[in-house]
Amino acid sequence: MSTVNGNVKPGRSASVYSDLETSRLKVLIPLPSVLKSSFHVIDGPKTSAAGNPGEIAKLFPKLFGQPSVSLKPGGSLPGKSIKVGIVLSGGQAPGGHNVISGIFDYLQNRAKGSTMYGFKGGPAGIMKCKCVQLTDEFVYPYRNQGGFDMICSGRDKIETPEQFQKAQETAKKLDLDGIVVIGGDDSNTNACLLAENFRDNGLKTRVIGCPKTIDGDLKCKEVPTSFGFDTACKIYSEMIGNLMVDARSTGKYYHFVRLMGRAASHITLECALQTHPNITIIGEEVAAQKQTLKSLTDYITNIICKRADVGYNYGIILIPEGLIDFIPEIQQLISELNEILAHDVIDQQGAWKKKLRSQSHELFESLPKAIQEQLLLERDPHGNVQVSKIETEKMLIQMVETKLEKRKNEGKYKKDFKGQPHFFGYEGRCGLPSNFDSNYCYALGYGAAALLHSGKTGLISSVGNLGAPVKDWTVGGTALTSLMDVERRHGKFKPVIKKAMVELEGAPFKKFASMRDEWSVKNRYINPGPVQFTGPASDVINHTLRLELGSQA
Amino acid sequence: MSTVNGNVKPGRSASVYSDLETSRLKVLIPLPSVLKSSFHVIDGPKTSAAGNPGEIAKLFPKLFGQPSVSLKPGGSLPGKSIKVGIVLSGGQAPGGHNVISGIFDYLQNRAKGSTMYGFKGGPAGIMKCKCVQLTDEFVYPYRNQGGFDMICSGRDKIETPEQFQKAQETAKKLDLDGIVVIGGDDSNTNACLLAENFRDNGLKTRVIGCPKTIDGDLKCKEVPTSFGFDTACKIYSEMIGNLMVDARSTGKYYHFVRLMGRAASHITLECALQTHPNITIIGEEVAAQKQTLKSLTDYITNIICKRADVGYNYGIILIPEGLIDFIPEIQQLISELNEILAHDVIDQQGAWKKKLRSQSHELFESLPKAIQEQLLLERDPHGNVQVSKIETEKMLIQMVETKLEKRKNEGKYKKDFKGQPHFFGYEGRCGLPSNFDSNYCYALGYGAAALLHSGKTGLISSVGNLGAPVKDWTVGGTALTSLMDVERRHGKFKPVIKKAMVELEGAPFKKFASMRDEWSVKNRYINPGPVQFTGPASDVINHTLRLELGSQA
Repeated sequence: MSTVNGNVKPGRSASVYSDLETSRLKVLIPLPSVLKSSFHVIDGPKTSAAGNPGEIAKLFPKLFGQPSVSLKPGGSLPGKSIKVGIVLSGGQAPGGHNVISGIFDYLQNRAKGSTMYGFKGGPAGIMKCKCVQLTDEFVYPYRNQGGFDMICSGRDKIETPEQFQKAQETAKKLDLDGIVVIGGDDSNTNACLLAENFRDNGLKTRVIGCPKTIDGDLKCKEVPTSFGFDTACKIYSEMIGNLMVDARSTGKYYHFVRLMGRAASHITLECALQTHPNITIIGEEVAAQKQTLKSLTDYITNIICKRADVGYNYGIILIPEGLIDFIPEIQQLISELNEILAHDVIDQQGAWKKKLRSQSHELFESLPKAIQEQLLLERDPHGNVQVSKIETEKMLIQMVETKLEKRKNEGKYKKDFKGQPHFFGYEGRCGLPSNFDSNYCYALGYGAAALLHSGKTGLISSVGNLGAPVKDWTVGGTALTSLMDVERRHGKFKPVIKKAMVELEGAPFKKFASMRDEWSVKNRYINPGPVQFTGPASDVINHTLRLELGSQA
Repeated sequence: MSTVNGNVKPGRSASVYSDLETSRLKVLIPLPSVLKSSFHVIDGPKTSAAGNPGEIAKLFPKLFGQPSVSLKPGGSLPGKSIKVGIVLSGGQAPGGHNVISGIFDYLQNRAKGSTMYGFKGGPAGIMKCKCVQLTDEFVYPYRNQGGFDMICSGRDKIETPEQFQKAQETAKKLDLDGIVVIGGDDSNTNACLLAENFRDNGLKTRVIGCPKTIDGDLKCKEVPTSFGFDTACKIYSEMIGNLMVDARSTGKYYHFVRLMGRAASHITLECALQTHPNITIIGEEVAAQKQTLKSLTDYITNIICKRADVGYNYGIILIPEGLIDFIPEIQQLISELNEILAHDVIDQQGAWKKKLRSQSHELFESLPKAIQEQLLLERDPHGNVQVSKIETEKMLIQMVETKLEKRKNEGKYKKDFKGQPHFFGYEGRCGLPSNFDSNYCYALGYGAAALLHSGKTGLISSVGNLGAPVKDWTVGGTALTSLMDVERRHGKFKPVIKKAMVELEGAPFKKFASMRDEWSVKNRYINPGPVQFTGPASDVINHTLRLELGSQA
């Protein structure tokens, strides 16, 4: 492999594989039956949009209303070869390499003579036409491996007329029949805009999306889950399970575990269902109930005291990374801080604090010093607080500690509280994909190539019936416009695929809510252990998906 | 199970097992051939001590000089039943439950009618005679499971005449033929003192130790490794490997990973051998070379700049938890701080700082504020800084950042440095024991019971030839006095089993040292993935042990 781009590293060499990676490399991934022999594509009914269909129709005049499709056995697709580009967009998620392998194998098996390019470093690679031709020698070393290092990803967007122009130039230069965009909600919205733009400009290049995000917030009826969520939650749950056994063995620590997942709390909810911690905070519930930092601290403190009463001086507490975004009073404080930071100098004397509303000022002063400092840290390029840098778990430990100290003085609490902070994030994004993610991604990729090959555009690859064995999985594509709504930004309507939040009426949350009181005082810890690739424990899929598919277990 | 002690939790119920735990529960652990049928015990030559034999002889008049022993096939042990107590001492380590299972199974199979007690909550359980009778129903649910939750452990010591008196009372009350102490260097020293005390007082109760510590610092020729080290290092290496793939995929983060292990850097060294990070700091080397915080920061900064020159703006850096204990100037600062904290009030104005020597004062002022605060935190019960609370990884990130900023201003560094701190500790102590630890612990326990049954005392259970298949492992006991030296404390000689530090001339360090320069600039990352219990990747043992056993790989 040649290094076209300084950011993209030379491919893997055989000498640096671990034993497990080597064994995973050799595993042949099963395909859904429908993809194993000849198939044809069936159009569904005309589609609409998730919201504001009138505006979506205006934004996507060429694509709006097009049917979603499904693949059925029998028939024959054109055998002709095609040229396809692929891109990884946004944060890492286990399984990305298998999506690419699936696309590659489809083209090798079903569209012989096809050419495949990998755009490097995300959508910027499309705009700059930075790519590498994907050959068997290039793709093989990444099969069933974690990470995005084959072609790396990036967070750029194709948004402006100039950027679309550049994308068109690349599509023409490489004579592309199609592009597959592997990404989250934003990236798939972008994929649809690109599909519309190409069609509008008479390009033959079609665009298909694939649902990726460990956060689990890109999903709907037709796209039951996004890849990476299964593996990441299993990795975090392994660590949480280990902490549980340690807590029970040691008898003296409260572990406060913050888990990656900013916009939605799916990861935290799934890890709770896998491990049964004593306390779990779900951001969506905090927002719905308009909880305050004080009410949250009280909730945690009360459970700790109840546990002390029955002799337990230890526990496990899960907190979503995005928690502070869900607490209305903190959101208010942050938005005031953003305003102040944009215009004022933050001096040691704190004159700037006078610009805070009195409630926000009071809240700010009540926070531990380290958190105050973190709230004043550098903003991200969009001017937002970098939530992942705020150590919410330490904040809660300090606030709970203060409250318990008070209760101790009042004679209401008699133990010594020791909080241990943890943040599980980066460790989960690039693990070896679980069997589920390996299989799911391969089918997503194989299906995406089939959609492109049959001339489809503006669809997201959709693999369903996931509770069944792989052979019975369904394969198709969902019209991206049917998943869209609009948001008003700077006075203009922007199309968005709404993030799927934790539904408080959904099966996973209800299951959790029905059990959490028991978990809080009795110990019902479950220790899932490390992800297995063979043996009886290797074929479990995550609880969220199982419950959403209607399983009662 | 009845809850005798508030700190000890009711046994596991079947409903809270994960699929993997259930499958592990059913696995039958293989035994070394010598333990599978009849065997006899062969005494070795008379032993001496690791140092100061004259003083050790005075401290252990009854036991000093006794031979180590080995088990050989053939012959027959007395079939008579015995009464045995067991205790877990000190920090958690994966495999403790299998030591107990091994002892239990020996007694069931070879000394029918025997009785076994588990002392609860560590050595305090012996002194207070808090125990539970271990039955098949009680022991079975913990087979091959992580944690110490069957009977929990504790950090008390049996030291004073009154405490020995209490231990004697318990031994008599329960009519014990033997006690097995499962613990680290201190606990095994204690076990030997107890053996001496019981013999000196005419008790029939014998005492056998078992080598436990994830830190890997209890080992010698006869005891090639302590249990738990293998599993803990594999768990940490899984996480490090995931971070490596993430770093390579993302291309923009330096992950600073602090690893548990205070007194010695074995864990850090082993994880480095498993994963090939760009930079690894080994405490023993830092001490031997009398490095300063400045020289360490320079070392890290230089490698980061070299990597920037070849296009890499990311990397992985491993740091042992005990690092600051190894830096002479920080040790000096801490000892001055301990003195000051014991007598002065730490005021905001910093008048107390005048009591620091000028070099220490300068060093203190050069440290990031958060670290200054952590150095002034509450002391542990022995008056020492709680090193595990000092976020060395953050300290190094800040110091490297400052240095890179300077080089940037000088035009010598052109990238943006982003450091991500991690601490892997509690996650590794209670994982499901690896196949190696499961097998090793079971043999240690089975062997310990055989030693007791054949009337031995003051030995540590010793299983050897670990590079070979389990059936060929050797089994015996090493005279604890032969591992001892003395230290002078408060004017008196105290016996100690010296902690095994990382040997700078040993095979593991030399292997690391021969490769680290290549790892630093070229990327040779290895991602071991999660511990597997079946399949080709399940039978690997750790590099430290393999290299110490003479393997060249």
